[in-house]
Amino acid sequence: MENVIMDFDILNSLVKEGEKSKIVLLVMDGLGGLPITPGGKTELETARTPNLDALAEKSILGLQLPILQGMTPGSGPAHIGLFGYNPIKFNIGRGVLSALGVDFDLQPEDVAARGNFCTVDEAGLITDRRAGRISTEVGEKLCDLLLKNVKLPDFELFLVPEKEYRFVFVLRGKGLKADICDTDPQATGKPAIIAQADSLDSVEAAVAIRSFVSQANEILRDQSPANSLVLRGFSQFPDWPRFNDVFGLNSNAIAMYPMYRGVAKLVGMHVMPPANSMEEEMDMLEATWKDYDFFFVHIKKTDSAGEDGNFDLKVHVIEQVDALLPRILNLNPDVLIVTGDHSTPALLKSHSWHPVPTMLYSPTCRPDGIGEYGERACSRGSLGNFYPSYELLPLALAHAGRLEKFGA
Amino acid sequence: MENVIMDFDILNSLVKEGEKSKIVLLVMDGLGGLPITPGGKTELETARTPNLDALAEKSILGLQLPILQGMTPGSGPAHIGLFGYNPIKFNIGRGVLSALGVDFDLQPEDVAARGNFCTVDEAGLITDRRAGRISTEVGEKLCDLLLKNVKLPDFELFLVPEKEYRFVFVLRGKGLKADICDTDPQATGKPAIIAQADSLDSVEAAVAIRSFVSQANEILRDQSPANSLVLRGFSQFPDWPRFNDVFGLNSNAIAMYPMYRGVAKLVGMHVMPPANSMEEEMDMLEATWKDYDFFFVHIKKTDSAGEDGNFDLKVHVIEQVDALLPRILNLNPDVLIVTGDHSTPALLKSHSWHPVPTMLYSPTCRPDGIGEYGERACSRGSLGNFYPSYELLPLALAHAGRLEKFGA
Repeated sequence: MENVIMDFDILNSLVKEGEKSKIVLLVMDGLGGLPITPGGKTELETARTPNLDALAEKSILGLQLPILQGMTPGSGPAHIGLFGYNPIKFNIGRGVLSALGVDFDLQPEDVAARGNFCTVDEAGLITDRRAGRISTEVGEKLCDLLLKNVKLPDFELFLVPEKEYRFVFVLRGKGLKADICDTDPQATGKPAIIAQADSLDSVEAAVAIRSFVSQANEILRDQSPANSLVLRGFSQFPDWPRFNDVFGLNSNAIAMYPMYRGVAKLVGMHVMPPANSMEEEMDMLEATWKDYDFFFVHIKKTDSAGEDGNFDLKVHVIEQVDALLPRILNLNPDVLIVTGDHSTPALLKSHSWHPVPTMLYSPTCRPDGIGEYGERACSRGSLGNFYPSYELLPLALAHAGRLEKFGA
Repeated sequence: MENVIMDFDILNSLVKEGEKSKIVLLVMDGLGGLPITPGGKTELETARTPNLDALAEKSILGLQLPILQGMTPGSGPAHIGLFGYNPIKFNIGRGVLSALGVDFDLQPEDVAARGNFCTVDEAGLITDRRAGRISTEVGEKLCDLLLKNVKLPDFELFLVPEKEYRFVFVLRGKGLKADICDTDPQATGKPAIIAQADSLDSVEAAVAIRSFVSQANEILRDQSPANSLVLRGFSQFPDWPRFNDVFGLNSNAIAMYPMYRGVAKLVGMHVMPPANSMEEEMDMLEATWKDYDFFFVHIKKTDSAGEDGNFDLKVHVIEQVDALLPRILNLNPDVLIVTGDHSTPALLKSHSWHPVPTMLYSPTCRPDGIGEYGERACSRGSLGNFYPSYELLPLALAHAGRLEKFGA
């Protein structure tokens, strides 16, 4: 972490106090796309976006790289990068990510893990790591069954069902630590691994987890096909430098879904209650405009449409966002960044590694004069083709007049 | 510093001996700019520069990044970068920078600091860190008063007034070291901090500084509003690898102002007496052409015009430099780099974080064929948009035929 801290230290030492300028980070989840026909246009290039195009003319453009070259980001690390933290160095544990995704109110001493119900044979060897993809209803019933029957007198236990065979495991107790190995061997034909502490202060949690696993195996023994479980990514709410402290900002997060509100909480942002629509997100932005100076606004539906392989719907959502853009511009932000957290091409029906269209507008920017907001337009912009996502925030601070000179 | 030294070691091991090729680094201070009207041109784009444009056609272009993304450089670190030293790792102390700025002839064992006259209340708490921005004349008088009355028998003391409430403090003695904390708390409502040594070999200087401070407070007691002082950035002439040794060059610095001659001295360059005009700088270049093989030529007035918000004057100075360019080209340099140390847009009346137009001409370059020298022309060039400033020098060495192959 030395380099991270050093970089933050330098940046932090340059942050001006008492600045009132305002920054908006508008994230269209999964924004980047691909043509579905050879020689065709991407979702963003297809969408009619007069407002975004007009803003592009006055902005600097580029394609940002969320993680490293060729790496497809999950939502957590992708947002951590947009918040100015190098996601390779500030790595969120799998358990914590899962807890954020189900809107679990994780406490600093909680130990969280991602759980899978699985199938084992008589010798205890795993035969199906997903227990035949049991239905979500069955998963919920199994979580209930375990919660009713497992006895861990000195702890609180939470099991929150996710989709199908997945659940979130949380152990709550005083002074727990999470340096514990996965019980999931990530392969069939092997037994589950015994949870072992990798540090002395994680022994207490490891003992409790072993007790949980052995009781759970007893309770699930006669279920079929989900007669066992594995846990991985034991982790805790990270003790990272807080966003507001590092960057000298008073931040507000506006989002509809738990994962994005959660990842904002992770860096200590103030988080609004869940919005029910993009329009309501704009209402919240306007209503809190005078109370904060950094606004993270998250648009989910671009990603969902991409994941569903629905090219036209993704185009339509982008056009809806374009129609809302004047509401943001009417607030006169000093800096407005429009980007995605990653690409989700409808063609691939999944997140992808392709760099993400990005535009930074500010009255103090040196405009590229490219009057179009799309992947290939952005690739001609001055931010270049693989701009590290976590360097957007320092750039926003600079354009907002929030950084002192380095050296005299 | 490990990485720094390692990088230099590799480069240094490749430097050829006995090469006679010549490199010119022409720095127009604060060259980068911004349009003053939406959709308009920058200062450099506005200037009529037929000679620079013709040279651009045969050159490689790009925009260089002086420090890190979003960081606005001071003159010192910006030049350190152009001299091939990573300015984040080779960080010049504040005191040394101030001493360079007033053309003080700093010796290796001198301890320098930046001083502020300030105002304290009866309890000794700072009420104004700038003593009501006293005039430069008052600042000069106070420096004189202190120099006449402070007694430090075993040391030499220098106090050189800067503008208004600022002065440079230099303590001269044998074997002094400067690991000493700031006395400036950088906030009002607090007392000045007592100068403490952070290493054993800095104790002697710290004791002398405490004595200076307490005598100074006695002497200034009845002055108003400047009845006290604070010191920060205790530092010494750095013990860095010398430019000529690292890069195998015999260097000559040509500049009009102390800061730039000083920063060249810092890396051990030969430095010409101050020039009185750009024309005289060209005279010096011609007169010393056969005696050196690396020439740093510094043009100040682009920056001053930018700082004054005088767009037209900055354009005019750039045109004057363009008119002088043939005098450099007539010398047939093997490499000519034309760049700035940072941007100083007239729009912002200050240094800024925007990357800096850069062109490297050499008969051995692979020309971009872009026949224009301006910000947006450079952003299309093959050096890219954020070329690290400290990588220009190795590139110049290569184009000058001064580097051996890496590996056989």
